[in-house]
Amino acid sequence: MAETYPKKGFNNVNRYKHQETYDVETIHAIVNGTPVLHVSFVPDPAVPLPIVLPMIGQMGLFPGDESKGETDWKCYLHGYVSSRLMKLADDALKRGEEGLPLCVAATKVDGFVLTLTPNSHNYNYRSAVLQGFGTIVDDKDEKIWAMQLITNSVVPDRYDNTRVPPDGAEMQSTRILKLKISGASGKVREGVPEDERKDMKREDVLDSVWTGVIPIYEKLGEPQPGPYNRIKKIPDHVSNFVDGENKIREKYALDAAHKPAPVKRVKKTDDD
Amino acid sequence: MAETYPKKGFNNVNRYKHQETYDVETIHAIVNGTPVLHVSFVPDPAVPLPIVLPMIGQMGLFPGDESKGETDWKCYLHGYVSSRLMKLADDALKRGEEGLPLCVAATKVDGFVLTLTPNSHNYNYRSAVLQGFGTIVDDKDEKIWAMQLITNSVVPDRYDNTRVPPDGAEMQSTRILKLKISGASGKVREGVPEDERKDMKREDVLDSVWTGVIPIYEKLGEPQPGPYNRIKKIPDHVSNFVDGENKIREKYALDAAHKPAPVKRVKKTDDD
Repeated sequence: MAETYPKKGFNNVNRYKHQETYDVETIHAIVNGTPVLHVSFVPDPAVPLPIVLPMIGQMGLFPGDESKGETDWKCYLHGYVSSRLMKLADDALKRGEEGLPLCVAATKVDGFVLTLTPNSHNYNYRSAVLQGFGTIVDDKDEKIWAMQLITNSVVPDRYDNTRVPPDGAEMQSTRILKLKISGASGKVREGVPEDERKDMKREDVLDSVWTGVIPIYEKLGEPQPGPYNRIKKIPDHVSNFVDGENKIREKYALDAAHKPAPVKRVKKTDDD
Repeated sequence: MAETYPKKGFNNVNRYKHQETYDVETIHAIVNGTPVLHVSFVPDPAVPLPIVLPMIGQMGLFPGDESKGETDWKCYLHGYVSSRLMKLADDALKRGEEGLPLCVAATKVDGFVLTLTPNSHNYNYRSAVLQGFGTIVDDKDEKIWAMQLITNSVVPDRYDNTRVPPDGAEMQSTRILKLKISGASGKVREGVPEDERKDMKREDVLDSVWTGVIPIYEKLGEPQPGPYNRIKKIPDHVSNFVDGENKIREKYALDAAHKPAPVKRVKKTDDD
């Protein structure tokens, strides 16, 4: 696997250069750590109106592909794959394309950055955007492998702690989209507030406006047994996940709030 | 304002009918409660490849529009509005269209719903999708009004607690997109786990798999003063927001975990 995604055309992040990344590990970590991905496609190629669907997804390299010498990871997407979406993917293949053109976005908010003036307010965040071509996974082994990958991305080891394998009807009704990535980029902002020079010079403003970061993270609450649950003790794969994740997530958001601000190209303004 | 969005064509939710909504208040609440919206558009009308950008947005009705008899709320979007995006919006207007075709998605995850079998796993979530036409806000009063709306959506009353009004350079550099909505829909899932009848009959499965909900909510941490902050006490508009929101969010996720499962059209499978 290449260590960075190629920097070209559509994935060229052209603002906040200091925050941009093409690092494969960083981009994959953002995608894999986001519980909902936003997947966009154009339902009618004649009309430039996209739609966006929330889906669950994970980066992965299917062992069957790897054994054929494939090294690029794919994004496996699970969600409501409509018959229309399936037809669009098939149509694209028939036109000789690699699949349905898709764009996938993952964004995590890590903090609200409160500065002296509204225009300098920011988020601490991590975002990734993937572009590429989607196809429906037909291969049975790959489908089961992807179902396992995606289930365990929600709660590690969950798959083996449920009634598996999926039966025929379940295999039939599950549809997985596989995104072959043609380009990807990420953006990361972390750190303390930063303001424009013109405001940093104003004692009256510095004396009156509170500046700082409100850390944010997705907190997992106490697991709530359902009405037909018979297992008295919450199993380790669930409780370990909740405890461990909460510590990691809280620490990330708090650490991000205290890092140095990104190196900024000081912007000259007509008020400066 | 109409109380529901029209049900037509592209916004017709065609699965999980019991979860769909066209209720304006519900859809606006989902959009307004989501810290990052995912905004999609097609950069080159000749190529059906969309891109998705994370942006901050809020629903609102500008008093200047309201005084002209306008009753439909718009979605105001703030983020990186590139020159290319501005040009696309202008080009669309020149072609006689209402603006640049956009799709905006907002999704909140409220819980991981763990069931007997991977295929019945679900999220408690709220999602909304808006489609319509975007234009750049030129009117100075509307722009200031929208900047205030969006800043206060992050932390209530924040705008008036900072150095305002924006100066000339800030007005110049801020770009706001205004989305006129042509269609919208939402989906909400809340409640306890639900499994297929075939698994509910299996004592061995019921005796071995823990089922329940892990509630999730965006937790706001203790506000962290920045390096040039001079205000010793965290101001009320910040601390009240953090305390109040945390209570509301935790309660929502916990309540959602205990509601009845959605009424399901029982699916007949070949294993049933």
